[in-house]
Amino acid sequence: MHPANEPCLARISDGRQLTLDSIVSRILQGASSFTRVHPKLVASVHRSGSQASVRPAVVQVSNRTVVIGLAADSGCGKSTFMRRMTSIFGGDPKPPKGGNPDSNSLISDMTTVICLDDYHSLDRYGRKEAGVTALAPEAQNFDLMYEQVKALREGKPVDKPIYNHVTGILDPAETIEAPNILVIEGLHPFFDERVRDLLDFKIYLDISDDVKFAWKIQRDMAERGHSLQSIKASIEARKPDFDAYIDPQKQVADVVIQVLPTQLIPDDNEGKVLRVRMIQKEGVKNFTPVYLYDEGSTISWIPCGRKLTCSYPGIKFFYGPDTYYGQEVSVLEMDGQFDKLDELIYVESHLSNTSAKYYGEITQQMLKHAEFPGSNNGTGLFQTLVGLKVREVYEKVTATESASAVAS
Amino acid sequence: MHPANEPCLARISDGRQLTLDSIVSRILQGASSFTRVHPKLVASVHRSGSQASVRPAVVQVSNRTVVIGLAADSGCGKSTFMRRMTSIFGGDPKPPKGGNPDSNSLISDMTTVICLDDYHSLDRYGRKEAGVTALAPEAQNFDLMYEQVKALREGKPVDKPIYNHVTGILDPAETIEAPNILVIEGLHPFFDERVRDLLDFKIYLDISDDVKFAWKIQRDMAERGHSLQSIKASIEARKPDFDAYIDPQKQVADVVIQVLPTQLIPDDNEGKVLRVRMIQKEGVKNFTPVYLYDEGSTISWIPCGRKLTCSYPGIKFFYGPDTYYGQEVSVLEMDGQFDKLDELIYVESHLSNTSAKYYGEITQQMLKHAEFPGSNNGTGLFQTLVGLKVREVYEKVTATESASAVAS
Repeated sequence: MHPANEPCLARISDGRQLTLDSIVSRILQGASSFTRVHPKLVASVHRSGSQASVRPAVVQVSNRTVVIGLAADSGCGKSTFMRRMTSIFGGDPKPPKGGNPDSNSLISDMTTVICLDDYHSLDRYGRKEAGVTALAPEAQNFDLMYEQVKALREGKPVDKPIYNHVTGILDPAETIEAPNILVIEGLHPFFDERVRDLLDFKIYLDISDDVKFAWKIQRDMAERGHSLQSIKASIEARKPDFDAYIDPQKQVADVVIQVLPTQLIPDDNEGKVLRVRMIQKEGVKNFTPVYLYDEGSTISWIPCGRKLTCSYPGIKFFYGPDTYYGQEVSVLEMDGQFDKLDELIYVESHLSNTSAKYYGEITQQMLKHAEFPGSNNGTGLFQTLVGLKVREVYEKVTATESASAVAS
Repeated sequence: MHPANEPCLARISDGRQLTLDSIVSRILQGASSFTRVHPKLVASVHRSGSQASVRPAVVQVSNRTVVIGLAADSGCGKSTFMRRMTSIFGGDPKPPKGGNPDSNSLISDMTTVICLDDYHSLDRYGRKEAGVTALAPEAQNFDLMYEQVKALREGKPVDKPIYNHVTGILDPAETIEAPNILVIEGLHPFFDERVRDLLDFKIYLDISDDVKFAWKIQRDMAERGHSLQSIKASIEARKPDFDAYIDPQKQVADVVIQVLPTQLIPDDNEGKVLRVRMIQKEGVKNFTPVYLYDEGSTISWIPCGRKLTCSYPGIKFFYGPDTYYGQEVSVLEMDGQFDKLDELIYVESHLSNTSAKYYGEITQQMLKHAEFPGSNNGTGLFQTLVGLKVREVYEKVTATESASAVAS
């Protein structure tokens, strides 16, 4: 046991040692010395009465929009992921003002998220008639997807259709302006080669069958009264097309977040405690993998011990080089869950290459959305880390292209 | 693979990053900027012609001798251990000048090592007559051992008997002056409570039966032509007394170096590749355990990977808290062996609380004695680390007692 009278120290990135207590209290206070807004995001300082407010504003620093792709099955926490990511850039993601209330788009200060379901070529009735699922390429309009993502990337607005998830039909188009960062999320962001080539960063959210099943049981059986049999049947029905068209896209992703059952509890099948792996491709432009302790070596780490006490089943990290579909990757893995803030900040202090702008930023982002699903485990942590990586991709792309624009 | 055009960087203790190449070349050159002699050890600078030499000298800074105990079975690498340890303090360990050529004592600038076999109360013939082994307490003169260790600790010279290992009888005594550091090594340094209480630091070298057997086969069968059966018989004959009188001493040791067969090669029984554990007791006066990466948590680390390539079977480290005979300990473990200097310096860069005075000192000590057995594995590494800890114990004891002498 760590002696009670000695403070737990964490080394922060500039080499200083701070007690965990002082760090935690600074984070909880949202101490301004800890929260530095990136100069690029600060457009103006407004004064109203005696109060000064620093507001990030939409500033287009290069000619083009940075495009991020997020692939995943539906109902796998994509919207949580999106909210975590857009929150890093500031502002509240909202549907386009005064538009269709069933719009799938979310617009905030810097980012616009569009849902690729909007590029369905066949609506619910069309698919039924043709005998294809929503996962089939035949049900997607890849030509339009390509044209519109390309236009947005070049800074041009588009009139994008809306797939109405309530009615199952295609509603009249909405106008989408080119944002600083466009996120295309859905089933097929990397399927069409032309669309894939437009992406600056590719993320795949990979939920294992075991976890998907546990989650569906929890939601559909407990909350919606479905039978176990009908849940199984619906999963089985989707599987062939999922395996054929969706799953293979993970091979071209820059980062895969893999969600698996825990290995800390023998024979666990509740899907509550998760083992989450962030598979990070090496040699990707504008992206450097996060690592634990020592870049390129293999480490397993149980932070719980003398300095940090954790409740059962504890927390276990793994980091190491690996290959994934024949490509060099670095894997960062977290099994278990945080039950105290101490644990999160302690873990943050031992991660490197996170693309955070200050020590405590990861913890602060996680705290800001403590009510989101996965905030106490690897899904929330890795979604946050990927969000920081997206910010870095954005900053590098715009810096490079601004610089080359000046040079030419 | 680590890209060939990027240098491998190691973070050194002051936060700077140096390439491994530059560190290695500085160590190989014995660069003076890397080699700082502790001020206490520098008594004078002699000039002879144009050459300046800095020579550590025997300086007694407190009234008493610091006493270190090293327990182990015979033929378990104790003399190598001793030579590594005394080398840290400078000077070549030699038998007392002009004395008995069969003396078991080794004297160097700061340290004197005495062998506890010299306190046999029964010689080879006496033991045969009484029907006891050399391991039995009845064959030891603990009263004399206590009196003489106590006298030396107080700075007084003693006339110590010599057990002649060649003839098996007790030779006339030799005079031993009180050194700065007295090391008592042998079978029973912690057996007698009075002697044990005189020790400032207690080390136990614990070779597992498997490894002992493999080593004995190698030495006695290959080099001395003994039969497998006679080797087995001699081990079996020693075992009851060993288990009764020697082995239990490890429970009171401050550090146990445990030598086990490797786990990197399935079913290995050659005893060439070793897994070595340094079991470090917590809460020991003047001693803080060495750790890897993060004090108090549990870590396994394979340094070989993208930055460091190793040949089969590689190297694996483990560090973590544990209990040992009901006492809190921290375990540092190394399995495998170094085959390049790069690997050793890389490992050194990730160890903390080593008590080294500069980055590179561990590697330099290991290189200085590259021809000693175990220089490429955990036995050499941990012997070196324990040597540095002994230096720290010495410095702390003398500093404290000097300070309290001044104060009183």
